[in-house]
Amino acid sequence: MSVEIVEVGPRDGLQNERTLVSTAAKIAYIGALVAAGARRIEATSFVHPQRVPQMADAEAVMDGVPRVPGVSYIGLVVNARGLERALAAGVDEVNAVVVATETFSRRNQGMSVAEAVRSFAAISAGAHANGRRVTATIGASFGCPFEGEVGADAVAELARQCADAGAGEIALADTIGVGVPADVDRLVDAVRAVTGLPLRFHFHNTRNTGYANALRAVERGAAALDSSAGGIGGCPFAPAATGNIATEDLAYGLRRSGVASGLDLDGVVTAAAIVERELGITLPALLGRAGDFPGGR
Amino acid sequence: MSVEIVEVGPRDGLQNERTLVSTAAKIAYIGALVAAGARRIEATSFVHPQRVPQMADAEAVMDGVPRVPGVSYIGLVVNARGLERALAAGVDEVNAVVVATETFSRRNQGMSVAEAVRSFAAISAGAHANGRRVTATIGASFGCPFEGEVGADAVAELARQCADAGAGEIALADTIGVGVPADVDRLVDAVRAVTGLPLRFHFHNTRNTGYANALRAVERGAAALDSSAGGIGGCPFAPAATGNIATEDLAYGLRRSGVASGLDLDGVVTAAAIVERELGITLPALLGRAGDFPGGR
Repeated sequence: MSVEIVEVGPRDGLQNERTLVSTAAKIAYIGALVAAGARRIEATSFVHPQRVPQMADAEAVMDGVPRVPGVSYIGLVVNARGLERALAAGVDEVNAVVVATETFSRRNQGMSVAEAVRSFAAISAGAHANGRRVTATIGASFGCPFEGEVGADAVAELARQCADAGAGEIALADTIGVGVPADVDRLVDAVRAVTGLPLRFHFHNTRNTGYANALRAVERGAAALDSSAGGIGGCPFAPAATGNIATEDLAYGLRRSGVASGLDLDGVVTAAAIVERELGITLPALLGRAGDFPGGR
Repeated sequence: MSVEIVEVGPRDGLQNERTLVSTAAKIAYIGALVAAGARRIEATSFVHPQRVPQMADAEAVMDGVPRVPGVSYIGLVVNARGLERALAAGVDEVNAVVVATETFSRRNQGMSVAEAVRSFAAISAGAHANGRRVTATIGASFGCPFEGEVGADAVAELARQCADAGAGEIALADTIGVGVPADVDRLVDAVRAVTGLPLRFHFHNTRNTGYANALRAVERGAAALDSSAGGIGGCPFAPAATGNIATEDLAYGLRRSGVASGLDLDGVVTAAAIVERELGITLPALLGRAGDFPGGR
């Protein structure tokens, strides 16, 4: 059994960090991730530099990353201008976000959910015209900081609309880290009823449920899981809280469960140390501190 | 659906902390836990004070804890002398440990596994003679820091021997925090084949798998789960590593999964703050930092 890990540290991990990381350090971080076996990496986002200053060097990062056969770099894109930049910068794949609730969509993206789906469709068409696969990430699929509970049917309906608009993959994101494995079950059931597209999951460990959710998602047939080396990446809605699940801890749990990720754990810990040094923080990831327990089933 | 949470913060949580916590603070911590709904609390251990200085005030703690109908206090006991002290101090239940591997058993308890089972049988007989239920905790059930992998058959055989010796409950402990949900599955299968006793689990979150294991254990019919308010409790074999899963984070995940624990989450966070202040540490628990997301299924 195997699952694909999408490394999101360089994008989602860094984007909310106030300490600006140099382009050279980002490239070194990405290079170390590739050396550790990462094969899909969300390398940067093409958003307005004033909105996310940490991503202002998107083109320079893409210019410097190692081009290794089999390694696919993903760029996050929020509009037509971003897509243009991403294509020019040579991304291999595009990720675009729609949010599951009206309030969050308006606050986060300044548009209604229906407008966000139309925006996704435009990005998707442009990416396809240039031969790039597009992922639709559905934010707040597990709960909304403004509206509370999110129905699985609403998420499935959005997934269907994104599939119709050309998505090659549906990513369900627990943006605020509130979900539990039972939520994974009901979302997989609901989304599977409307599309056969590969499912990817994006979990935050904000309330210590992220790894349980990830392992459940694999059991339920997820094709890919997002994680960030070191577990970097906070949540802007809960500033003191932990964000992304950590790649090394996830890969440990998978390996012990008999699920191959293709990653070298020591290599991921080494990559995480680069960004730990740059940010001057203590990483939320635990494996680097605890040490490995070898073997898997 | 419901599960019993055994609060182990006052014993397993504190015992490896170098900062000695005053008896008054321990009693306040336990009182706050009772107020938060805790109904089974491992309050202290009756071991030689030179071996575990933090537990030197076992009698004084037991003397000061609130005696509330329905609240059961557990004392950890390692030998006949400890049992005598525990009974005199008025514990409601007794917990005694055997370890699943020879090397760990000799290093931790200074005796072979067979000798540890005989010791357990003697403690069990003494406790029964005084009308107290005894739990057999099987340490290192998920992996050993010295011998590596631990076979489910070996754990089951130990469980059978402890059941024959009068255990009223079997607790399977992931002492070094290496297990994954698939390990929970194979251990439940193996132990269920030899005894129908209630199963309790003790998980450490050393490598970020503890909560996934706990939720799986509940799905597999566990009667009780250990956790510590605030997530206090390191592992002496990995000094920088996280120990026990946190009561508030566990109770959050359970409630969102539709499993009642009887605990008030805010109350547990309040109790954890007492010990955070006393120890002067940042708690591993996340819920207090992230805030609750209300509701459950």
